[in-house]
Amino acid sequence: MGFFSKDIQNMDDLFVHTLRDIYYAEKQILKALPEMVEKANDPQLKQAFQSHLGETKNQVGRLEQVFRLHGQEISGVNCPAIDGIIEEADDVAGEVDDDTVLDAALIAAAQAVEHYEITRYGSLIAWAKQLGRSDCAELLQQNLEEEKAADKKLTSLAESRVNRRAA
Amino acid sequence: MGFFSKDIQNMDDLFVHTLRDIYYAEKQILKALPEMVEKANDPQLKQAFQSHLGETKNQVGRLEQVFRLHGQEISGVNCPAIDGIIEEADDVAGEVDDDTVLDAALIAAAQAVEHYEITRYGSLIAWAKQLGRSDCAELLQQNLEEEKAADKKLTSLAESRVNRRAA
Repeated sequence: MGFFSKDIQNMDDLFVHTLRDIYYAEKQILKALPEMVEKANDPQLKQAFQSHLGETKNQVGRLEQVFRLHGQEISGVNCPAIDGIIEEADDVAGEVDDDTVLDAALIAAAQAVEHYEITRYGSLIAWAKQLGRSDCAELLQQNLEEEKAADKKLTSLAESRVNRRAA
Repeated sequence: MGFFSKDIQNMDDLFVHTLRDIYYAEKQILKALPEMVEKANDPQLKQAFQSHLGETKNQVGRLEQVFRLHGQEISGVNCPAIDGIIEEADDVAGEVDDDTVLDAALIAAAQAVEHYEITRYGSLIAWAKQLGRSDCAELLQQNLEEEKAADKKLTSLAESRVNRRAA
């Protein structure tokens, strides 16, 4: 976690700690996405993962801007939550023995990642506003909107194409 | 994960596997919630966690009904995602040295748990419908609605009480 025991003394510390958590998470997602692009069978799903890879790179850039605006060193802290979510995605994908079912499993895994990001950005935006950092909140809001759109897109791909073929 | 390698052959297997994943997750949450009740300082937050503990017990009961309806043995599989989310919640809570900031951190941690459940129930409901199990989908929908309501309640407590005091 990068902090020593009882090192979160105020809201600003909690904000910075959670910023480091999501920064680490986004970088882990950057590493995981190329494999998801490769594993996806449905061409529209493959394309959706590919395009989210590009978005994720921009999101990392926005987080770095937030660190700079807030006068903080750009760094991550270990995030057992995203590590667990990605580990579970790998485990399940490794167990699926059918291409269309694998696509359904990949969508579910990616949506678990999206929801983790959605909840963290939601907290960060609320805290940034409370701390008077509307400049940081605005950048974080852009990331949040992209995650929500990615989640919706995956739901629509599941409903319109993948689940029907897999069932 | 409880399955041998490549043991998910079809959508039904994926559905049952994910049902076991959320069953394990709900039971881990049942174990974690009493500690969150104890740690919370704001009386309304304490009450919200307490009432979600009761809801979670009912949700476990509904999942057991789904197993029975679907003719499957009631059992969980390890879920590294929820283990990671709870581990991170414990880590962060242990680092906070201020009562109101701790409440803000507890809300964020609980919302990460809610979002994990929201995404899993979303996938399970879509798959249940695709598999023609509208009876299972209906029970899972009840759990989903409760998780969404719990998440909204936490956002409202954060905005109306906790964040303001903590900042």
